[in-house]
Amino acid sequence: MKYAELRRAVYTANMALKEEGLVVLTWGNASQIDRDAGVFGIKPSGISYARLRPEDIVVVSLADGEIVDGDLNPSSDTPTHLELYRAFREVGGVVHTHSVYATAWAQACLPLECFGTTHADHFHGPVPLARELGKDELDAYEANTGRVIVETFGGSDPSHTPGVLVQHHGPFAWGKDAADAVRNAVVLEEVAKMNAITLGIDPAAPALPRHILDKHFSRKHGPNAYYGQREG
Amino acid sequence: MKYAELRRAVYTANMALKEEGLVVLTWGNASQIDRDAGVFGIKPSGISYARLRPEDIVVVSLADGEIVDGDLNPSSDTPTHLELYRAFREVGGVVHTHSVYATAWAQACLPLECFGTTHADHFHGPVPLARELGKDELDAYEANTGRVIVETFGGSDPSHTPGVLVQHHGPFAWGKDAADAVRNAVVLEEVAKMNAITLGIDPAAPALPRHILDKHFSRKHGPNAYYGQREG
Amino acid sequence: MKYAELRRAVYTANMALKEEGLVVLTWGNASQIDRDAGVFGIKPSGISYARLRPEDIVVVSLADGEIVDGDLNPSSDTPTHLELYRAFREVGGVVHTHSVYATAWAQACLPLECFGTTHADHFHGPVPLARELGKDELDAYEANTGRVIVETFGGSDPSHTPGVLVQHHGPFAWGKDAADAVRNAVVLEEVAKMNAITLGIDPAAPALPRHILDKHFSRKHGPNAYYGQREG
Amino acid sequence: MKYAELRRAVYTANMALKEEGLVVLTWGNASQIDRDAGVFGIKPSGISYARLRPEDIVVVSLADGEIVDGDLNPSSDTPTHLELYRAFREVGGVVHTHSVYATAWAQACLPLECFGTTHADHFHGPVPLARELGKDELDAYEANTGRVIVETFGGSDPSHTPGVLVQHHGPFAWGKDAADAVRNAVVLEEVAKMNAITLGIDPAAPALPRHILDKHFSRKHGPNAYYGQREG
Repeated sequence: MKYAELRRAVYTANMALKEEGLVVLTWGNASQIDRDAGVFGIKPSGISYARLRPEDIVVVSLADGEIVDGDLNPSSDTPTHLELYRAFREVGGVVHTHSVYATAWAQACLPLECFGTTHADHFHGPVPLARELGKDELDAYEANTGRVIVETFGGSDPSHTPGVLVQHHGPFAWGKDAADAVRNAVVLEEVAKMNAITLGIDPAAPALPRHILDKHFSRKHGPNAYYGQREG
Repeated sequence: MKYAELRRAVYTANMALKEEGLVVLTWGNASQIDRDAGVFGIKPSGISYARLRPEDIVVVSLADGEIVDGDLNPSSDTPTHLELYRAFREVGGVVHTHSVYATAWAQACLPLECFGTTHADHFHGPVPLARELGKDELDAYEANTGRVIVETFGGSDPSHTPGVLVQHHGPFAWGKDAADAVRNAVVLEEVAKMNAITLGIDPAAPALPRHILDKHFSRKHGPNAYYGQREG
Repeated sequence: MKYAELRRAVYTANMALKEEGLVVLTWGNASQIDRDAGVFGIKPSGISYARLRPEDIVVVSLADGEIVDGDLNPSSDTPTHLELYRAFREVGGVVHTHSVYATAWAQACLPLECFGTTHADHFHGPVPLARELGKDELDAYEANTGRVIVETFGGSDPSHTPGVLVQHHGPFAWGKDAADAVRNAVVLEEVAKMNAITLGIDPAAPALPRHILDKHFSRKHGPNAYYGQREG
Repeated sequence: MKYAELRRAVYTANMALKEEGLVVLTWGNASQIDRDAGVFGIKPSGISYARLRPEDIVVVSLADGEIVDGDLNPSSDTPTHLELYRAFREVGGVVHTHSVYATAWAQACLPLECFGTTHADHFHGPVPLARELGKDELDAYEANTGRVIVETFGGSDPSHTPGVLVQHHGPFAWGKDAADAVRNAVVLEEVAKMNAITLGIDPAAPALPRHILDKHFSRKHGPNAYYGQREG
């Protein structure tokens, strides 16, 4: 199997989406990039998780989005992944799901406000909402979906807020590799659930104060992070 | 075992309803038709999923709804399935459940509005609500349930919206065979859940704009569909 | 083991409560009566489901509520079961849980309105709410809990509505034996969940019309029932 | 392995948090104290539950919070546990999670009102809300989190209400050992869920009357408790 390590990582991340309960039927895909080789691996389109094998992962060129290796059609969302890899240079993995709570927020056309420290530990502020596409943007629908995500971030660091809600559609998340993107998709869904329940208890629940938001984010990110084990 | 292939397909679909979490106790049934033979197979009435075997599937005549083969009483909903097979000629499988979110929408007496692309990928517009039966329609209750579903569609193509909510009762879904009907029942329940959560976040959530509804449906259906693998 | 058959039935019903997801920690108990022997078997108090064995079931006298056989203390709710067996002569099994949705309705101090056919198939009308006990009724707290349940039914047939919500407390359900009582507890929890979701979608959801309520109940109960298999 | 019994108990309690569905990713920690030895064992920081082993549990000094034995960094929440063990002398185990319903109440900035007997069986009155930290309290963030919990109890007996919600953050629970703290965390989450559903059914649901609150708490606690089996 060519690109064996890449395919194995992408396969494992896709299976983790299913195991974490983020996908129903075939509604999800994870990819990972090898920037040195200029390719990324992605789930084939419409293949059930029960049948998916590592060798089914499609390897696609970062230069033109064409298939480099693989017998199947790549996910129909491949052009979205491609746009994200091109614009977000430090991103190593991308995940898209229709996980139920994050998708409900996307359907409500609202960004995910930061109500607590669970959110602040992983996303430095609200998870933004990318606008819906206009009638004149449907031709390159999936590529334009990626472009409105990039537009939404407007140059701010996507690693500080490693996810987005696409209006009326659902969440995308990313990370330093596919496994990290899956973790961020899990966090995004859990926070989306937590926040929906919060609003059910009190529709006027207040946002997390800025000083606690910054404190929690800095516990896990940046030069003074002190969560977890020191690597190396 | 006579009608072995049909019974195996119907048995597998019924067990999938249980595995997908769509049924509690014995509240669900799946059927599949063999139009060449003029019969359909359906779950027996009130048999627990733990005890169900392929040979228990009851084979019923499309002509008159009578048992053609089998030792058990067919589902009490058999006349509903029969009406659907008669009116919807392209349908090959039918499923009925009391899955909790879809049933809650039926109890709220509301159609399932299309709020997002998850819905639009599978149903081309709202999932309609079939009216409740009047006092003078109770005699042939189950057959009349099928007739109000057919009445609800009014001649529009049932394959474009492969499901319905029966008011105060619950969902029916269909497809090209029983397995496809199960998939559509899974989608219907997931979208019903997603939409209930959406309204919990914002009771005034806007419907999906028409141009995106059409775009998503056409990605998976019709001559220009490009989702999944080309069958070959 | 004395009373082996009774203990086995009670043990199996208690384990089913756990398997059906109706109990957290040790918050639940099932019992079954042998009216010929004048005794009922019930779960011991505070014993974890992981450790429960058939021989741990405590056998209690219907005459005076005293232990007839067994080494452990019976459930602290034993006097409630006793009152129900005394007043409801046709009941063969009783279940008490703190299942989350039914308990939430009890905490909201509301009966469970009948919104749909799922409910009507099993309960012939709303599941009533038993009033809370007054300060002067605390001494025989558990026996009085049984008495307010009996008071709530006021002589109407408890087999037509085989369950109740005790205000601020939680559900009790019953049936012709312990296994049947467990089934009714499962239905009560599922309907409680369905109805909570229904109100979340539309707080003004209408009750099921009477003619459909009666039709559905009579499909499964009484001389003209036609659901299920005719018993041989 | 030194401190083998303590480490085994702490390991088992941490794994139970995962099995009970209270933690996502690595968001939770349990500890247990050996007051004679003047040490407590706690989960290492950021280690996945799939990889956790008994020997990974970090043993920390009650005197100064320094590591006494262990190769890994202790949980970043260790100073919070330390403050609780110092102030609450009868507490033998502490648990912190971000369980979704309890955290939603913390995000809604509301104490957990007592609506029913499930709550009253375990917590003698509302579960209080500890205030958020001010800008000048961030330096010793985790220790100050413990101090505001202690401040919240203001000298009242923490064993009567063995848990707290930290505003915008999530729940802490405690007990006579780590296993007991886990049980109280399970109860806290279940009650938080029950209460959120209760408010969804009726936003004006009434609190449990005082006489029933006291009756239920005294059934399980104090000299006249009669729930469970008599020990010894």
